[in-house]
Amino acid sequence: MGEFVGRITFRIRYSETDRMGGFYNSRALEWFEMGRNEYLREVGVSYADMEDRGYRLPVIEAHVEFKARATYDDLLAMETRASMVSRLRVRFENELTDAATGTLVAQGYTVHVVADPSGKPVRPPPWLTDALRKVAEGG
Amino acid sequence: MGEFVGRITFRIRYSETDRMGGFYNSRALEWFEMGRNEYLREVGVSYADMEDRGYRLPVIEAHVEFKARATYDDLLAMETRASMVSRLRVRFENELTDAATGTLVAQGYTVHVVADPSGKPVRPPPWLTDALRKVAEGG
Amino acid sequence: MGEFVGRITFRIRYSETDRMGGFYNSRALEWFEMGRNEYLREVGVSYADMEDRGYRLPVIEAHVEFKARATYDDLLAMETRASMVSRLRVRFENELTDAATGTLVAQGYTVHVVADPSGKPVRPPPWLTDALRKVAEGG
Amino acid sequence: MGEFVGRITFRIRYSETDRMGGFYNSRALEWFEMGRNEYLREVGVSYADMEDRGYRLPVIEAHVEFKARATYDDLLAMETRASMVSRLRVRFENELTDAATGTLVAQGYTVHVVADPSGKPVRPPPWLTDALRKVAEGG
Repeated sequence: MGEFVGRITFRIRYSETDRMGGFYNSRALEWFEMGRNEYLREVGVSYADMEDRGYRLPVIEAHVEFKARATYDDLLAMETRASMVSRLRVRFENELTDAATGTLVAQGYTVHVVADPSGKPVRPPPWLTDALRKVAEGG
Repeated sequence: MGEFVGRITFRIRYSETDRMGGFYNSRALEWFEMGRNEYLREVGVSYADMEDRGYRLPVIEAHVEFKARATYDDLLAMETRASMVSRLRVRFENELTDAATGTLVAQGYTVHVVADPSGKPVRPPPWLTDALRKVAEGG
Repeated sequence: MGEFVGRITFRIRYSETDRMGGFYNSRALEWFEMGRNEYLREVGVSYADMEDRGYRLPVIEAHVEFKARATYDDLLAMETRASMVSRLRVRFENELTDAATGTLVAQGYTVHVVADPSGKPVRPPPWLTDALRKVAEGG
Repeated sequence: MGEFVGRITFRIRYSETDRMGGFYNSRALEWFEMGRNEYLREVGVSYADMEDRGYRLPVIEAHVEFKARATYDDLLAMETRASMVSRLRVRFENELTDAATGTLVAQGYTVHVVADPSGKPVRPPPWLTDALRKVAEGG
């Protein structure tokens, strides 16, 4: 059993590097978004569908720790986990490793509220909380 | 007299470089957008206002020629010119130079249609074509 | 027979959209880079290896035509073709379509010189020109 | 007296928005970098100079809290403060407000080590620690 873990792999783009030679720090947050995106698709509540139904998941908090250098064309693997951290907030945890060596490259999390299209926080719809509860329980 | 020329200066951000050491090529198109933005504000038809009135200016063609290297923290100067290239199309020309040396860094253009919020092309409103005609004539 | 065509598919990221609702125009140039990258890997001269051997492929000209709207989570397909357009210049052609419908989304090209790590243009190494000639001839 | 505070103002670019209508979350980290950049210039240790002298300031931790929506063309003001949080680590605090209304838009921090060009952490040079100590004491 155990909670659901979303997994994606992707290569670092040249456009994502900076002149220090590795990836630019803010890119981690764009990759975290890719992780959330595929996580939600896999648990059956695709974020594109959520938006079509009138819901948004704006980020209210983001945190990243950078552990090892990675650069252009490196293949990265990301694991994503999600949970409801209160009745109104969803938290995603992300762990980014070098796919070839397993070295931890970065880890962090984002916290989200559920909002309507104007940005106003709303109660999360049952189909979202149910889906997240189910995967958290490994069901 | 002569046509109106919009001028801005800005520094290259670290996030805009890549591991080749200079700025990443697509950044030129983001800077061209900044040039259009300030150009339109200066001729009295701010793009934010245009959107509030229900108009968009999607890019339908973009062209850039890269002439010299420039990198992080360099101060760049950009000149922007605009004209109606048909009854339905607006063209912006951009010229990017090193502000310290005058060296040409990049030049190019973008072509735009006027569209409604759904992206459907519409006839440009008179207040836009009038403003562009006036500045083109150096009025 | 016929020339080699590189093919990749990818989803538009949320970070690649803008408030007009579709993808932001400069993203096309980042995607063209992904196309070049996989093209070169497939013809046996990976760009990461090229950099390790002391060669760069800076963009000296870029052109994009935007044909149809595409947005977040859409699956896009890109075809990439390459050729030597003079003894010193490489040209990549890119065609971007909606993978579900086949609709042309954008097309364009980039022209590159071969340069040393300081950015100085150099004669392309034989292993690069040979590889490109071979695939152009469908060998 | 009191510690030195770096201040910059800038407009949100169209390229920095996403289809939710406001700025995309990772942009905050790019703006934090602009804040650090001008902060260091003002206290006399420009980051471009630091790189020329062989030092880098890679981010090892980043944190952002998003407090209010802001969008394209909004004028933002950012305050930046810096301190040595150990003998080897520098911390920058950033506070981002709407320049027109004073509303807090986002706040956060980044933690950095001092590294050589290969990315290896090194002891911060005295001219950096002295400059930061001096401004922290309001000297």
